[in-house]
Order: sequence, then C-alpha cells, then structure tokens
Amino acid sequence: MRAAVLREPHRIELDQRPVPRPGPREALVRVSAVGTCGSDTHYYEHGRIGDFVVHEPLVLGHEAAGQVVAVGRDVEAITVGTRCSIEPGVPCFTCSQCRAGRYNLCARMVFFATPPVHGAFCEYVLVDQTMLTPVPDEVSDDAAALFEPLSVAVWANRKAEVAPGARVLVTGAGPIGLLVAQTAGAFGAVDVTITDVNPNRLALAERLGVPRAVDVSRTDLAAAFAPGPAPDVLIECSGIPAAVVDGLRALAPAGRAVLVGMGADEVALPVSRIQSHELTVTGTFRYANTWPTALDLVRSGRVDVEALVTHHVGLDGVEQALTMGARDPAAVKVIVRPQE
Amino acid sequence: MRAAVLREPHRIELDQRPVPRPGPREALVRVSAVGTCGSDTHYYEHGRIGDFVVHEPLVLGHEAAGQVVAVGRDVEAITVGTRCSIEPGVPCFTCSQCRAGRYNLCARMVFFATPPVHGAFCEYVLVDQTMLTPVPDEVSDDAAALFEPLSVAVWANRKAEVAPGARVLVTGAGPIGLLVAQTAGAFGAVDVTITDVNPNRLALAERLGVPRAVDVSRTDLAAAFAPGPAPDVLIECSGIPAAVVDGLRALAPAGRAVLVGMGADEVALPVSRIQSHELTVTGTFRYANTWPTALDLVRSGRVDVEALVTHHVGLDGVEQALTMGARDPAAVKVIVRPQE
Amino acid sequence: MRAAVLREPHRIELDQRPVPRPGPREALVRVSAVGTCGSDTHYYEHGRIGDFVVHEPLVLGHEAAGQVVAVGRDVEAITVGTRCSIEPGVPCFTCSQCRAGRYNLCARMVFFATPPVHGAFCEYVLVDQTMLTPVPDEVSDDAAALFEPLSVAVWANRKAEVAPGARVLVTGAGPIGLLVAQTAGAFGAVDVTITDVNPNRLALAERLGVPRAVDVSRTDLAAAFAPGPAPDVLIECSGIPAAVVDGLRALAPAGRAVLVGMGADEVALPVSRIQSHELTVTGTFRYANTWPTALDLVRSGRVDVEALVTHHVGLDGVEQALTMGARDPAAVKVIVRPQE
Amino acid sequence: MRAAVLREPHRIELDQRPVPRPGPREALVRVSAVGTCGSDTHYYEHGRIGDFVVHEPLVLGHEAAGQVVAVGRDVEAITVGTRCSIEPGVPCFTCSQCRAGRYNLCARMVFFATPPVHGAFCEYVLVDQTMLTPVPDEVSDDAAALFEPLSVAVWANRKAEVAPGARVLVTGAGPIGLLVAQTAGAFGAVDVTITDVNPNRLALAERLGVPRAVDVSRTDLAAAFAPGPAPDVLIECSGIPAAVVDGLRALAPAGRAVLVGMGADEVALPVSRIQSHELTVTGTFRYANTWPTALDLVRSGRVDVEALVTHHVGLDGVEQALTMGARDPAAVKVIVRPQE
Repeated sequence: MRAAVLREPHRIELDQRPVPRPGPREALVRVSAVGTCGSDTHYYEHGRIGDFVVHEPLVLGHEAAGQVVAVGRDVEAITVGTRCSIEPGVPCFTCSQCRAGRYNLCARMVFFATPPVHGAFCEYVLVDQTMLTPVPDEVSDDAAALFEPLSVAVWANRKAEVAPGARVLVTGAGPIGLLVAQTAGAFGAVDVTITDVNPNRLALAERLGVPRAVDVSRTDLAAAFAPGPAPDVLIECSGIPAAVVDGLRALAPAGRAVLVGMGADEVALPVSRIQSHELTVTGTFRYANTWPTALDLVRSGRVDVEALVTHHVGLDGVEQALTMGARDPAAVKVIVRPQE
Repeated sequence: MRAAVLREPHRIELDQRPVPRPGPREALVRVSAVGTCGSDTHYYEHGRIGDFVVHEPLVLGHEAAGQVVAVGRDVEAITVGTRCSIEPGVPCFTCSQCRAGRYNLCARMVFFATPPVHGAFCEYVLVDQTMLTPVPDEVSDDAAALFEPLSVAVWANRKAEVAPGARVLVTGAGPIGLLVAQTAGAFGAVDVTITDVNPNRLALAERLGVPRAVDVSRTDLAAAFAPGPAPDVLIECSGIPAAVVDGLRALAPAGRAVLVGMGADEVALPVSRIQSHELTVTGTFRYANTWPTALDLVRSGRVDVEALVTHHVGLDGVEQALTMGARDPAAVKVIVRPQE
Repeated sequence: MRAAVLREPHRIELDQRPVPRPGPREALVRVSAVGTCGSDTHYYEHGRIGDFVVHEPLVLGHEAAGQVVAVGRDVEAITVGTRCSIEPGVPCFTCSQCRAGRYNLCARMVFFATPPVHGAFCEYVLVDQTMLTPVPDEVSDDAAALFEPLSVAVWANRKAEVAPGARVLVTGAGPIGLLVAQTAGAFGAVDVTITDVNPNRLALAERLGVPRAVDVSRTDLAAAFAPGPAPDVLIECSGIPAAVVDGLRALAPAGRAVLVGMGADEVALPVSRIQSHELTVTGTFRYANTWPTALDLVRSGRVDVEALVTHHVGLDGVEQALTMGARDPAAVKVIVRPQE
Repeated sequence: MRAAVLREPHRIELDQRPVPRPGPREALVRVSAVGTCGSDTHYYEHGRIGDFVVHEPLVLGHEAAGQVVAVGRDVEAITVGTRCSIEPGVPCFTCSQCRAGRYNLCARMVFFATPPVHGAFCEYVLVDQTMLTPVPDEVSDDAAALFEPLSVAVWANRKAEVAPGARVLVTGAGPIGLLVAQTAGAFGAVDVTITDVNPNRLALAERLGVPRAVDVSRTDLAAAFAPGPAPDVLIECSGIPAAVVDGLRALAPAGRAVLVGMGADEVALPVSRIQSHELTVTGTFRYANTWPTALDLVRSGRVDVEALVTHHVGLDGVEQALTMGARDPAAVKVIVRPQE
C-alpha cells in the first residue's frame, strides 16, 4: 500500500509498505478520508511536539474514517464491510485513570501519528475493535473523519458544563473553535460568541449560525459584552496567551474556562481574579467517550462538520495539505483521500 | 378589578375586588395572560390538593404574564411599563434550602393559587420585584405566561442531566410532557421518545419535532426500544403508576428517572431493578433558577410554547377553561386573558 | 487442592480439585481468608439468587485475601509472594459502562461465586492481575478479605455523597450496615444513626463508635429524630420494605437514599414524598474503584473491619459458617481460613 | 463601648462609640472573642487590599463570636442570651449568584472589616439574624470565633472535592493551611502532606496529626512524593507563586488545585501541564453554607481550632496582635477578647 511518510521536517514522501495484518482483536480498515490537523503540521515543520520527537520516519494523520475489510479471529464487535469512524487512540483500559472513566489520561495510550506510532495518511490501518464506530450511509466519509475534531469540541463543552442558559465565549475560529461554537449550541447555549482576527473565519462562523462573531483586531473583548451579562464559559481555542487572559478577565463570577488551544508552556494568569471570582480553569487532552455523541450531532444535523472542508487532496497531496493554512487564508480543513 | 374566585368545588364566580397596592419591594402587574394547569382543575374539582385545602374563596391561576403598572418605594429591579413573565412563588431566601440554591424546597414559600394565597385569574396581581423577568417584544403574552410550565420542563431536564448523547423517554404527552420533550431536544438530546394513548397529543408531538411518538395503547414500551439501545433518561409526566414502572424497567443501567407527573401517593417500584441497574429516581417540586433559561429557549425558538395553546377565554371563561380537558380531547393549553 | 462445593441446597461437601494454572495475565493466589456473606447463605439455602441459578456444583465465597504464589507470563503488576486483597469480579473493561467508569454495571462481568463462576472457599484461586491490591504487613488476612464488604460500604457512601455536615441514617446493623455507618464517619459525617432490632448488633455499633444506635422495635424512627434536624442521607442495609419506606419518610428535603439491602423485588414507595421533597433514590450493585480507598480506611484505622469478625472456621466449616447467623444471634462475620 | 479603630496605616486607637441599636431583623451581640487574620494585618500595614481602600477610620476584625444581648422586633431565629459564632458577611440573598447557592459571590455582600463596613474589634456588633450560629457550652468562645477561618478550610476542601482516597497536598502551614490540612482529614483524606519553611509551624502540623509535614527549604517537593503516587489535590495556602507552580506540577492527572492563599495578581502558570494532565484550577473567595459544618467539626473534635491559638490580648492589644506574626515566629493565631 502507499503511505505518506514524514522523513524529516519539511519532507514527506510516498512509500510502498505492506498492508498490515490484523491481530486477534483488530480490524483492517481501508482509509477513505483523513482530516489534517494543526498537530500534523507542527510535526511536519518542527519534527516534534514537546517531548514527542520524530526519530524514525512517521506516517501522520489521526482524523480518519474508512471501511472494514478484514478482522482478526476474536473480533465480535464489527463486521467486514462496515463503514466506520476511527477513534485514533487505544488506552490500556485497566489503569486507575481508565477505570475512573478518564481513559484519555491513560499513561499507556497508543495514539495515531504520535511517535513512534504511525497514523492514517496511508491506504490501510489497523484499529482495535473497540475503537470503531459504525456510521450510517447518510454520514459521509469526510464527516466520519471529522468525528475526531468534533470529539475535541464535545469534550470541551462537557468539561465546561455547557447547557441551556450558558453564555459561551469561544476564542479562536479555526476548525476547533468553529466546531466548539456549533457544539455549544447543540449543548443548548443560545448566547454564543466567537472571536478571531481572520475575517474569512468569522464570516464562516456566521454562516454556520454562531450568534455573534467578533473581530478582536477591531473590537475590544470587554466592550463586546458591555453592558450585557458577562459570559460564564470560556472555551479557548486559539492558544494565544492574550486570548486566554482576556477571556478569563471577561468571565462572570463562578465562570468556567476550558483551555483547548495549545501555545505557550506557561502563561501569566490573573490568579487574583480566579480567586475573587472563583473561576475554574482546566484544559483538555484529547477526549473520552465522545464518538457516540459525535455521531448523534452529525447525523441530526446539529453540527455541520462538512462545512469546514475547504480542500481535498490525494495521498500525494499530504505535504500540500499540511502547508495549506500558511498559503491560503480561506483554508479551514483539508481532507486527504488516500484511495485517490 | 374583576377576579375569578373559586367559592367551592365546581363553582367559580366573577367578583369585584380592590386593586391591591404594592408593598415597598413589590410591583403591581396588570395581568395579560394566564395559563390553566391541571392543578387549577384539581382545586376546582376537589377543593384541595393533598394537605392544601381551599377553606376560603380562592383565586386560582399561577402561569402568568403581564405589564408592570406601579412599583413600591424600594423597587429598583424593574420599571413601570415593563412586560414581564411572573415566577409565581416567593421563597424566604434565607433558610438552608434557599441558601443551598434550592429555593423551591423552602418551607416558607408563598405560592400563587395555593391556599390561602391567591393566584392570577384576575386583572392585577402584586409580585415581589425579584420574581419578575422582563421579556422583549418578540415574546408574546401567551409565551411569557407559559414560562411557568416550561420551567417545570427545564427543571426536570436539569435533574435528569439531559445532554447530547442522552436517550430520553418522556411518558405522557400532555402540556408538561410536550414541553419536556421539546426541552430535552434543546438540552441536546437527539434520541427522544414520547408516549401517550391520545392520538391528538402524539400527533402534536410529531408536529413539534419530537423524534418518536409511541402510542402505548398499541405498542409495548419495551418493544418500542428493541433491539436498539435502552433509554438512559425517563422523565415521567403522566402520573400513571404503570407508566412509572414500565418506564423504570425500560431504562439502561445507570439510568436516571425524574417523576414529574403527580398521581398516587405510593407506587410499587421495582426496587431490585433500581439496585441491579443502579437507577436513580427522583421527583420534581416546582423549579429554581429557570426563568432566564425559559426566556432563552423561547426567544431562540428552540422550544415552541405557543404551539400548545388551543383555546383562549376571558376572565368569564375560567370555569370553561378548567373543564376544557374533559370536554375536548384536542385541548392542550387554555389561556385566560383577564383584560378581555 | 481442597474446595468446599455446594452440590445442592443445604449440602456442601469438600472436594479435591486440581490447582488451576494461571493464564497469561492471571495470578495464582493461595487463599488465606474468606468472609461469608448473606449471598453465600442465600445460594446455600435456595440454590439461586434471582436469575442466577446453581445448576452445577459451585464453590461459594467472594470476600477473599491471599498470597500470590505464581503468575502468568504477561503479568507485570504483581509479583510472587505479595499478600493481596482480591476484587472478586473482572469486567470487560471496554463496553460503554466500563469506559464511563462504571465497570460494576458491565454486562460481561465475571464474578466469583456467581453461577457458573466458582468462588474462593478453596485453597487456591486464579485472579486477573488487575484485580489484586497488595496489602502491607499491618493489614491482617481477615482485614484484607473484608475489603470486599467494606467496598460495598464505600460505594454506598459515595453514591450518597456523604461528607462533613451530612446527617446519615443507616437502617440495619448487620455486617454491611456496621461498615456503612463506620465509613460514613470516615467520610466526615458526624451525625450518624444506625437502627436495628437486634440488641447485640446495636451494642456492637456503639462499641464501634457509631454516635447513635436506635432499637426500632422500641423507638419510633420519626421520634428518634424529633425535634432535631431530619437526616439528609439514608443508606438502607436491611432489605426490609418497612425500613425503606420509614427511612424515606424520615429524610429532609433534597435527601438522598441509597438502597443496599436486598429484599423484595417491588416495594411500595412514597412517590408523592419523593416528589414534594425532591428525594433521590438509588441502589448499589457491587462497587467500582473502591479497593484503594478500602486500604486507606483500614490501614489508617478509620474503619475497624476486624471488629466484625466473631468466628473463624476451616474449609470443613463452611456449611457451619453459612448457617451461623440463624443459630447464633451474636454472630456477625464468620471468616473461613482455607489453609487450616 | 470601646472600639479599636484603624485611623491610618500603622495607627490603631481605642475609641468610645455608642452601642448600636439593632434593626428589625438584627441582633446585638456582645463580642467575646475575635481572631486576627492576615487581611486585618494587611489593612493595618497598607491601608488597603486591592480595590478596598480605608478612607475613613475603620474597625477591623471579622473572626468573631459573642452572646446575643438584644434583638430587633422581627427577629425569630435567635433569642437573647444565646452564645453564637458570627458569619461576618450579609449577602443580598436574591441576586442570581445568591439564588444559585453561591452567596459568597454576591456583588452586594456587606462584609465585616471591609471598608466602609466596620468589623468586630469592639465590644458590641450588630448581626443579621440569619448570620448567627448558636454554639453549645462545650464550644469555647475562641473556638466559636475560629469558625470563620475554619469555614475557609471547609470551603476549600469542598471545592477540591476531598474525600476518602484523596491524596492532598497543602502548601503553607499558617493558620489557614493548618486548618485546611486538618479539615482534609475530616473529609476522609488519609494521605495529607503539608509544606512550609517555618519549623515551628511544621512541628505544630505534626502535633495536630497531619500525616506528613515537609520543609521545602530542605526537601524538594517532587522528591517528597517519589516514588509513591502523586497528590491529586493541591490546596495552596501560602500565596507564594513558586508554591502554586510547584504544587501544580506535582499533581497527578485529573488533579484539582484550589488557590486559597493570596499573593501576586498574576502568576505564570504551567498551562501546557494543565492541559496535558487536565488539571482543574480554581480559587476561593470566602465561603458559603459552611457554619453548620464548622460546628460539626469542632464539636466532634475532628478539627482542633484552639490548638492554633498562641496568644490572647484585650482590645488595647489589637495593634500588638496585628504585628505579632512579624515579631514572634511561634505565633499562629492571636485572639482579641474585647471584654477584657
């Protein structure tokens, strides 16, 4: 099979590799669509993310969907021919974090496209039978691939305890911010504000029905809320320290902040404000138990994931896909179709 | 002013009464719309609900909206001329239940249309300034009056922890059940089933967008869910013991049941099932902190309260309104307009 | 090895059986102590509990401790020679209940002494490596065996959200009730009341430091709380319907009831009270993630599990152990020592 | 009556003032004991705390107990002669924060010793009837005064969700840290570590039964936990930025941090760690609904508040009391007795 392999920073090549054979509890999935993510681009540019360093050639890509074409001898949960969305990490399931329902924090997680584990920019992948979610015909391959970033959004909204009555501020209108804002609406929030400095993305937010899109290069965040009530939820999706700080300062007493966007290791946070307003600040690391909900949200039309897709490429276009954001300000989400 | 007064069971008469004068922290509200509720009908027919007995002539009606026409000297929260939805009970605010955020359980609550406190089937009422929610022009008088039953629905959904991914069973498609089912959708539930034996109401549920309406006079509840996943939330709105029991037995492990419908004092519940499936069973008593959310849901169109209104009457039609349900199977919600 | 086998109701015999060999992820444990439980006695007397029927000869016993004497080839979590408390059930770890942190509700749980799975009234048992908790020297074999009923108590207190300030009513002063009451204290409850009709058990409760022990054959439960504040937690450990109902009626508004004691399949519960007081009623089915906490509570002396042990027998005394309760009103917990 | 009045920074004088007369819902309390707090000292030294500036002469002191000597005409909750602990703030009770059960976040709170509201370093104070907690004879005046800092500790432990099984790190062994650590034990934590650099305070922590006291001037915090499990709760009581950061870095995945100690407005927090470990960070501002629990903890002996008292002074010793910490490293809590 063909696989797009990151050999070193700024160099991806197509390789021929053997189609892998499923272990007893695994399925072999023919990959139909893979979203590209900022973390893929970061590996492409820097060869590392924090302590995860690409020492050996690595296949990137972790937002994937496909069709089961073979299964191992103990597979009961899934049958050949089923179209599936792929949850790209397998936890140990038995450590204390897993048993507590927080398998995303499992120290033994094996995760796609995280060195030394290969990802899905290739024709076939092996997936543990427990990590496949069948999708019905009305869910497209692109949409099924995007259950992964949608899961990030679902997880963030859960952590923020978004519900009807919540006033939600989403900072950053990239793919994750756009999904977070839509998902906030699906969680019942009527009053949702998204911010960015990119007018293309703010316009897309409005087309997606986000009630308020604020260009923070033109409008002060605090002014955007005066004199009305302050938001009680911040979901930070830009990774920009100023957005974190301004967002925290905008929150009402007892507000909840969830930091999704990755950026600086340390940020000077307004601790006295966190205290006087009893704000709660947390972050997200991947997600747990989100695929069934992602399916619900997509199938019911409550979240439009496909609206984010601006480009499609084949396996030979992976390098182009990973650099699209820098070249085209209108790019939001690029989908790789390995079979094309 | 005119007031419709319950003199004894099955006898309501129009009286002339003085327009009351607001105390220091009260507003005088000219009543524009009042919904009729099963509890009003119960007082009308039986002269009591449990320990609450109508000893003196009583004005019924507690689902009310109107316009502020005068305010007491210490009123700061509201101004003359404001159209408002009325929360019909005033708690003490300082007991341990109130301080814990559960003012609906305040033992000193003073509540409309609960003997000896008069309700809103009259031209003017006094309301504590803290219990008025201003509504914008696009919210009609009828809708503002129905924030009260919508609050019952919001409270039930909160107690049931409905969120995206929840599979919700609502038993009983009367006004409360119809609002509960719509509200479950607004809380993110995609998979909502409502049951009844009245085809008019089931048809209305479908028109309101409830995904599945089941006639339990024709279809067994258990069969309605097989072979798919069992519901994990039951919101019981019929008060019928069999619905409570069948609903509980239908729930998935760790399911939550919220009993809203009032009926028998005691019901034989499947305790061993509650244990083996670790079901959680609770009930609701009125609501707390729901009016802002009701406003959000109505204004955004996520819940259509006006679709429930089948009849309007003037103050001289209160008796007719309270008996409409028994005479017209298509009746859902009758609104009294005291100024007509 | 020797094993005490239930051949049919009221007949237990000692058999010779081969010592089992551990699978790749299992440990072979030499059993040092096994508590006897009401469920063992129920199988002994009736040959079934609900839908679980003893069709084949069955080894009972599920409250067990021992020492690892051999391990399978993939065992990493535990080493030969380690003294351990045994969690007697292995869930699938991957179903939706397991992933949500509720592995006790796993439909594929394999549990000791539940037909057709054998238990621990024998010299050696196999245990999955993930279900063993090492214990330090200061924790005795008896105490380590009793982590299992203590886990029931921990789980019940967690579900009841017992914390400082809670006023807790425990109905039934059998082994579980006595552990629940002690554990409530360890969770911070200062005001704990236990009820029973057996003076031996009430006296033991007092010796164990339970603040108030009430003989409900002499004192009305309601009177026991007047005129002070009502309890806000009920943990029902008797399985007697009247205790469930009286306990529920005793609760303060917003009270939580956890039904641990098993008895009738159906109980007529005061539904209107559950509604007017917004009581929450749930039950427990085994436990999840409790062993580390049980170890903490025992090692620190906050719960005295050994004080419950009134008798010891060898493997040839299992039948005697299972009938002790009926013969000796002072019996609380009988420990079987299979190596004696 | 006599009152110790802060005229300007570093100048407190005894004044004669009229004994105030209770309003309709107030009680006049003869003050028996008042603890001194770091915030009092801060006002004494700087004349302000953040935006709260002492423009007019101010009576400090907010940790108070006393005896009711007169009541207003509408007081029902309390009678003359009752010994009470005083909760030193009165919220509005009706705003959205109050109604949600978070009255500590009420923007209209009127709080002792916060300009321009006077405190309790005087012979008599007025207290709203809802803010008095009667104490039994076995609770001393000193103990009753210290319900206030104990409330800070209870609130912090609630926010941190401390329960049996929690491993708790308390940074800072001043009066609040010592109460927090004791209270963590009362909430069920067996594994509690307290840190400081003052050997007197660490020794006191050990005498109070805190399981582990670490001198962080000698031992690295990370080393203190290796190789055992990391703490899952941090309650930061020093206000020192390095303690906040080191404490956060010490936490296990899904750990909760509660920042109680006040210090810098901004602190550079390890945001990427908050994300990768999904840590939750919040702060506390006063407390809500804690007095009944404080009474429970003190009366039952689970928390020893009196052990913190190292000095007593009369009203003429307030200035000495507020500067004791700087002069005597063994000083922990100084109690002012206004009647002496």
